[in-house]
Amino acid sequence: MNDRPYNYKLTIAYDGTHYCGWQVQPNGISIQEIIQAKASIITREHVIVIGSGRTDSGVHALGQVANFHTSSPLDTFRFQGSLNSLLPPDIRVLKTEEVADAFHAQYSPIGKIYHYLVHLGPVSDPFKRLYSYHLKEKIDINTLKAAASTLLGKHDFTSFANQAHLGSAARDAVRTLYRLDIVEEQGGVRLEFEGDGFLYKMVRNIVGTLLEISAGKYSKDELPMILASKDRKLAGQAAPPQGLFLVKVLYPEAI
Amino acid sequence: MNDRPYNYKLTIAYDGTHYCGWQVQPNGISIQEIIQAKASIITREHVIVIGSGRTDSGVHALGQVANFHTSSPLDTFRFQGSLNSLLPPDIRVLKTEEVADAFHAQYSPIGKIYHYLVHLGPVSDPFKRLYSYHLKEKIDINTLKAAASTLLGKHDFTSFANQAHLGSAARDAVRTLYRLDIVEEQGGVRLEFEGDGFLYKMVRNIVGTLLEISAGKYSKDELPMILASKDRKLAGQAAPPQGLFLVKVLYPEAI
Repeated sequence: MNDRPYNYKLTIAYDGTHYCGWQVQPNGISIQEIIQAKASIITREHVIVIGSGRTDSGVHALGQVANFHTSSPLDTFRFQGSLNSLLPPDIRVLKTEEVADAFHAQYSPIGKIYHYLVHLGPVSDPFKRLYSYHLKEKIDINTLKAAASTLLGKHDFTSFANQAHLGSAARDAVRTLYRLDIVEEQGGVRLEFEGDGFLYKMVRNIVGTLLEISAGKYSKDELPMILASKDRKLAGQAAPPQGLFLVKVLYPEAI
Repeated sequence: MNDRPYNYKLTIAYDGTHYCGWQVQPNGISIQEIIQAKASIITREHVIVIGSGRTDSGVHALGQVANFHTSSPLDTFRFQGSLNSLLPPDIRVLKTEEVADAFHAQYSPIGKIYHYLVHLGPVSDPFKRLYSYHLKEKIDINTLKAAASTLLGKHDFTSFANQAHLGSAARDAVRTLYRLDIVEEQGGVRLEFEGDGFLYKMVRNIVGTLLEISAGKYSKDELPMILASKDRKLAGQAAPPQGLFLVKVLYPEAI
């Protein structure tokens, strides 16, 4: 018999600037630990908040998803109001829903959407400095689009994954990228990623590589070789964290 | 003979969150003093940077204007690059121009444009928290528009000016408001002010009053009486600083 039969799903937005990332870390304050601490105050029991995955220091979320179990049912409207009143203003719970016991924020997702914002211009923008990557150099949008399209589909993305992800065992690094749209917007460009899952630093490593290609450092025709090599050293540098937003975590309708 | 015959105009954007405002203050770091200090390093003389007017702590600028005199001519492109490399990333010089000796950032303006951003929604937004005023309550946009229109034109705005402005002598408080547009945008509303000049805290006091009217606290028909009373206590509370942006300072073409 489950002694915590009530399962709640939280949809969370946060400005990652002042945190060491989502996940509890020995050094620095994480978003996860703050939400756990505040939710524990309200529920009067030590709750464990499970996120869909980690985000790094400086990375933002418009729709991170987490869940936690409790021994007593909650009035979700009142709970969310209480939680937001205890949380710092750079973390907000947007939605609180009771979900089936089987719902697990980390294991249940069938996909994720990330956006990466690049600000293009001769002078950086004080209002975008924490929420985009600023490039003074001109980039070739058509090359960027063409290079992005070659990464679509099912690939082993080892070349775009940092070691921390692969860990001790050689975990499966095959992922499917459903969509990688290059959207031009005022003052820059937004790279929209949708896939069934992403390896550690995969989005930032892909963005860094695509920007190097669009700046003419090498050719998009090298991308198939880079994928095939399964060698992280052949791909470009990771783009910095402040341009990255976890926009949405996708779950099957059934749970 | 002027020993500093070269006069330069700077157009500056800043995120006011971490400053005590534009103007040098005994307590706290001002934007003016930082720009003065960095410009003095480059010019190797103690420069005085004159702004178009002060902005309060937490108030932002997209186009603040300042000027300073130097004894030697500057390569404006190189100067701006050096200045931006010395300034913190929340302050950026967008434009540097040599101007006529008569140009004075504070005394020459013929008008100013301010925007005030209001975020409307049940939950505040981590990404707007420092750049807008969040209201949970619904407001009546048509009432807001109608109330705004009654303030257009030439009035004595004493009722909307904080005492700090009026100071020792009874300074002329007659100003002309050319435009006060209410622009609906995703997630909120933007109040756009254009006038020949603004008294201390006038924009924030007007915004606060208009929002109280649109929330139904009192009627827009009371505004003419509030203006005529020249009594600050009759108008509403100042809206908070983080929603306010100095967008543009207007100067005559001739100087």
